[in-house]
Amino acid sequence: MPDASARGAVLELLRGTGQFNDDEVHVAEELFDLGTGAPPSDPSYRWLAIFDGESLVGAACYGETPGTDRTFDLYWIAVQSGRQGTGFGTRLLQAVEHSVAKSGGRMLVAETSSRTDYLSARAFYCARGYAEAARIRDFFSPGDDRVTFTRRLEESSR
Amino acid sequence: MPDASARGAVLELLRGTGQFNDDEVHVAEELFDLGTGAPPSDPSYRWLAIFDGESLVGAACYGETPGTDRTFDLYWIAVQSGRQGTGFGTRLLQAVEHSVAKSGGRMLVAETSSRTDYLSARAFYCARGYAEAARIRDFFSPGDDRVTFTRRLEESSR
Repeated sequence: MPDASARGAVLELLRGTGQFNDDEVHVAEELFDLGTGAPPSDPSYRWLAIFDGESLVGAACYGETPGTDRTFDLYWIAVQSGRQGTGFGTRLLQAVEHSVAKSGGRMLVAETSSRTDYLSARAFYCARGYAEAARIRDFFSPGDDRVTFTRRLEESSR
Repeated sequence: MPDASARGAVLELLRGTGQFNDDEVHVAEELFDLGTGAPPSDPSYRWLAIFDGESLVGAACYGETPGTDRTFDLYWIAVQSGRQGTGFGTRLLQAVEHSVAKSGGRMLVAETSSRTDYLSARAFYCARGYAEAARIRDFFSPGDDRVTFTRRLEESSR
């Protein structure tokens, strides 16, 4: 887990991808503080980061979905724009899945958008065993659906 | 909107319906404090209550869904168990819809469960113009799906 000193690097990473607007970066900032602050940090918001040497290349935030039995939400996953497609995202996602499975997780849920600029995000999930489980038309705005991907974690990997 | 003095009555109401577990009542307690506390109260959590004389019969919590363009979430709606089926829920829901429409809302979203004990909740939404928009199998627990109802608010009523 990145410590609080990685805060600036994580926020810069999110901004750099161009896939998170100001509000979303602000929410990420709050979740980062909740998840990585002085103990007791909030176990609902866990962070994982991936580095190339000392340089932060990707980060993900996930946690158990309140009110569910062992369902986890993948709140954010981001890889530096210049480094996408080089395997860092896959390794980061696998690390999240491993962590969730170790915590007894049964299902991982990732929400994204139907917009064209999220095509690579949707393809990323599809290629890694996630299925589109639900879609709410026009949820984000007219013409912009909320698309929910889920992956069931195998009993054997838990 | 109920003021902070109605706090105990609202929480008792939620507990009395038997449809909210301890965790859910605790979340409602936090949302109530956020939405009805000393100004500036959080506009993301608005409350409406319905009374019979001086007695609280129902309450609802709703607010604009973060990251969306004019989509609103109906977080909770509850009517005292002994008074269900007598029109209070309908009037309360209409009041929520009116308030959302007045704020420019485009869509109301209500999430519920596929469990048998939520049958009356699902029937309540269906009978009032809501459609099942999405369902995630086994989301809450194995065999317990998350069912999302939406209602699009008419241009004319906004």
